[in-house]
Amino acid sequence: MPKRVDHARRRDEIALVACRAIAQHGFARATVAQIARAAGYTTGMVAYYFDSKQEIILAALRLILKRMDQRLQRAPGAARAGLLDVLSEALPIDGHRRTECAFWTAFWGQLAADPQLKRLNAWVHREYRKLFERCLAEQWPESLAWPTAVRQQALRSLIAFMNGVTTSAVSSPRDWPARTQVRQLDLHLTLLRDWARSASRQSLME
Amino acid sequence: MPKRVDHARRRDEIALVACRAIAQHGFARATVAQIARAAGYTTGMVAYYFDSKQEIILAALRLILKRMDQRLQRAPGAARAGLLDVLSEALPIDGHRRTECAFWTAFWGQLAADPQLKRLNAWVHREYRKLFERCLAEQWPESLAWPTAVRQQALRSLIAFMNGVTTSAVSSPRDWPARTQVRQLDLHLTLLRDWARSASRQSLME
Repeated sequence: MPKRVDHARRRDEIALVACRAIAQHGFARATVAQIARAAGYTTGMVAYYFDSKQEIILAALRLILKRMDQRLQRAPGAARAGLLDVLSEALPIDGHRRTECAFWTAFWGQLAADPQLKRLNAWVHREYRKLFERCLAEQWPESLAWPTAVRQQALRSLIAFMNGVTTSAVSSPRDWPARTQVRQLDLHLTLLRDWARSASRQSLME
Repeated sequence: MPKRVDHARRRDEIALVACRAIAQHGFARATVAQIARAAGYTTGMVAYYFDSKQEIILAALRLILKRMDQRLQRAPGAARAGLLDVLSEALPIDGHRRTECAFWTAFWGQLAADPQLKRLNAWVHREYRKLFERCLAEQWPESLAWPTAVRQQALRSLIAFMNGVTTSAVSSPRDWPARTQVRQLDLHLTLLRDWARSASRQSLME
């Protein structure tokens, strides 16, 4: 009986290896041959699943967004502690997440130089934003009652801060141990929620 | 009479062109020959000033830190509005600064893949941090009276936020016009100072 191959799973597997290769060697230096070798496949086998390196990168981006989404959904809920736990899942707090975050940092760093990636980023950026938006709505349901402007500003501040901790911790890991990342995020969330509440109250009184 | 050449100035000139080339083409693709061409010199002439691409990158990093420092010093002082003005100088709010910030983003994105840059970053990171520390001390002199832990946490939060706005605005410029960047920074500074003041008062009462 011939072996059944789960193609979707194999694609994901290659995409995951690509993510690791890019995190480690950068976008320019990670080649299809290298990704194939690291995945334990021939270059021809990888070519069966993906037409180009660009396509592998797209698959890696999709996969990382999916995994972030799953992790953000799974984490325990309720109140501020909930949002902190959930968002910490997306920070480079362990080896696994450091790889994903190094991939993000490499991706952002490559955008100015790569018009194809830049086009891709329009979609990536939207999905990334939606992911955090959903998180905020689920973990801070009160935020749904905030005026749109307040909610949008809080969301933007949150994403900027997450990106900043990600970049800082990936580029200077010794200076940003997991505890420090979570502590900084905790402070940011606390300040942001207090501000949003008071800004919402104020806009109600106007 | 032979033409006098200002070597230091020429080195700076090449470093600046390198910064632009890297911002535009990325670390891997910007070559010494390309940098030379963009600067209007021969590759041999560039080789007279720098032994390697690595050395050009180091010179570019030094130059950008120096320029940031000069801009941060020059900006008008006093109170919170002062710090906002000063720090806005380091954000990608115009073409010139976008180039420098795209260079930073490319640099951070390349660190995981490049052991030589990683070593360099130990020094860069220290200088970068000192620069913001000086800014904070000058623009918010009250911060010198805050307990060290509070001051350090505020400094770290500030740097993370600056890095986050930089990365976000470089990767999604349409979503981050100058006004939005400054507005977000303004909110972050306000929240951070209020927090630091109240945390300092609390630690005095303990």
